[in-house]
Amino acid sequence: MRTLRVALGERSYPILVGAGLLGEASPYAPYVKGKRVAVITNRVVAAHYLARVQGALEKAQAHPLAVLIEDGEQAKSWASLDRVIDALLAARLGRDALIVALGGGVVGDLAGFAAAVYQRGIPFIQVPTTLLAQVDSSVGGKTAINHARGKNMVGAFHQPLAVIADVASLDTLPQRELRAGLAEVIKHGFVLDAQFVTWLEVNMEKLLARDRDALAHAVLRSCELKAQVVAADERETGQRAILNFGHTFGHAIEAGVGYGEWLHGEAVAAGMVMASELSTRAGGLRREDAERVRALIARAGLPVQGPKLAAERYLELMQVDKKAAGGKVRFILLESVGRAGPRSDLDAQLVRDSIAAASP
Amino acid sequence: MRTLRVALGERSYPILVGAGLLGEASPYAPYVKGKRVAVITNRVVAAHYLARVQGALEKAQAHPLAVLIEDGEQAKSWASLDRVIDALLAARLGRDALIVALGGGVVGDLAGFAAAVYQRGIPFIQVPTTLLAQVDSSVGGKTAINHARGKNMVGAFHQPLAVIADVASLDTLPQRELRAGLAEVIKHGFVLDAQFVTWLEVNMEKLLARDRDALAHAVLRSCELKAQVVAADERETGQRAILNFGHTFGHAIEAGVGYGEWLHGEAVAAGMVMASELSTRAGGLRREDAERVRALIARAGLPVQGPKLAAERYLELMQVDKKAAGGKVRFILLESVGRAGPRSDLDAQLVRDSIAAASP
Repeated sequence: MRTLRVALGERSYPILVGAGLLGEASPYAPYVKGKRVAVITNRVVAAHYLARVQGALEKAQAHPLAVLIEDGEQAKSWASLDRVIDALLAARLGRDALIVALGGGVVGDLAGFAAAVYQRGIPFIQVPTTLLAQVDSSVGGKTAINHARGKNMVGAFHQPLAVIADVASLDTLPQRELRAGLAEVIKHGFVLDAQFVTWLEVNMEKLLARDRDALAHAVLRSCELKAQVVAADERETGQRAILNFGHTFGHAIEAGVGYGEWLHGEAVAAGMVMASELSTRAGGLRREDAERVRALIARAGLPVQGPKLAAERYLELMQVDKKAAGGKVRFILLESVGRAGPRSDLDAQLVRDSIAAASP
Repeated sequence: MRTLRVALGERSYPILVGAGLLGEASPYAPYVKGKRVAVITNRVVAAHYLARVQGALEKAQAHPLAVLIEDGEQAKSWASLDRVIDALLAARLGRDALIVALGGGVVGDLAGFAAAVYQRGIPFIQVPTTLLAQVDSSVGGKTAINHARGKNMVGAFHQPLAVIADVASLDTLPQRELRAGLAEVIKHGFVLDAQFVTWLEVNMEKLLARDRDALAHAVLRSCELKAQVVAADERETGQRAILNFGHTFGHAIEAGVGYGEWLHGEAVAAGMVMASELSTRAGGLRREDAERVRALIARAGLPVQGPKLAAERYLELMQVDKKAAGGKVRFILLESVGRAGPRSDLDAQLVRDSIAAASP
């Protein structure tokens, strides 16, 4: 087991990475002794891991209770949030209770937001069981639900007490979701660490074959990179925005085709290709570096083209995206491999051309 | 105009108290220049003050937009929150926008919570127009909505950028609401400041006659007292709980008769009489001090008895109250005039007797 600390002052927390962790008592023990714990998860994840997590919690002398939510992105709704809150109130959980978010990004976002607002905030532990959740949502404290007018429009920054990232839990992950998680790993490399990009270029086959050592390294390095950025800018007022590379386009794709059609990582993958195109057109990125983005995404088996969607529709959808600051759409452009920065003064025609260059 | 600072580190903020403030540009100016501002209010308050606030915001070079919510406690619901969020998204407000909460405690709680969760949190300014909101909700950053299973069960701690407390706005307050606000003023005296209790005993008639100097003093002293407690315990993990004197009983009254039947301050008033009774029975409070609580509440024209409600129903309702920590109901008992503390080990029979002593 390896441990990484996310440095956020009094909100600092550890990320534990290893194989088999979610079924052991020790990772939970420092937090849950004698407490009531609501394990929030969905049916698919519950079938694989709920009994193991409940057993571990009981061994750690906690009193666990399970709350099941729907599968998939539709769980990030007012209705699901209300059902979770209702279950916690019905079980009379007090402010000294604790939430364990067991599942992927959707479970983490919803359960984390429920923890943020239940009785004005109770602590929670993340047990991410998808690669995407392990490398992305486990760092940064972002929680949210969706709104008909846009993704993640209602939420909170709420840091977990700890993250328990069990790479063995990736064994049951569908290959499509493993690939989607790699999109964020690739992103962390391109915006922050050229050496990690090279490592990914060398080890992509191992990652796709679920080599546990390779996965553990990728999870740990991704979390380290993201943690440095988040520590410097917890509330996303500045530098943290670079983690949105590919996301302005990606969110438009997700909203444009309807949430859940494309996986988040797939949309971000195609979005990164678009953002790289835009970077060569407007930001001085070398063409061969944009090609490295496209090539690594292709090797991960991720889409290098967006869906059939008019460029104008992208622009419309991006307007309402939360990164629209004062009405202007902000893009994250790649300057070189390992360096990125925000731009919000871009000509709409350049954006349209970049979309077209990565569309069918 | 007098200014008080609530000391919360980087979340510190000023409370401005004076007559006519809400229609002046200067109190808003440091925060809103060039920004889009959503003024959240209800029809009743809007009729009196919305135009003045919008004018002041325009003079301060902001771009105001009004969002109207329902009147009364029913506005603290998922449905109202969703309507506010929807209005903000429809108007394409970004993360750099700002909310102004114009109204009483309900508006402040809902608008503050909307600010806490809109795009994971945007800043807000409180412009409280009721005495209750000026002396209570303007300090502490508590925001919330209600749930069918209990009051304020979903919410956040979200500190405002500033509070603009205009005592002239109390001119339009119904007398019943003025009295209800005095309940919290009285509470601040009894739990924290014996001298202020004496001042209130001398000046109660002036307050009821809306003498502006007396009101400004009462608002300022109440905020000062509450601010000291909040500064020491922002998240209500310890000392801050003493501000809940009368509230464990009060919330049970509000829930028991149906939200909105009794005003919050009325329920707290009767709750304080019950809590004083309990304090003499279990906490060693002198009988004559409990009588001072009852007498001052009576002079303010507030109820010294609860509604017709069985003692068992109180106990049931208090169980689910959020102050129930790990299943135990916690009461704030008065030790003497100006001193209070929490107790959660009380015999149910003493609680029943105290309820009966202040029931019809």
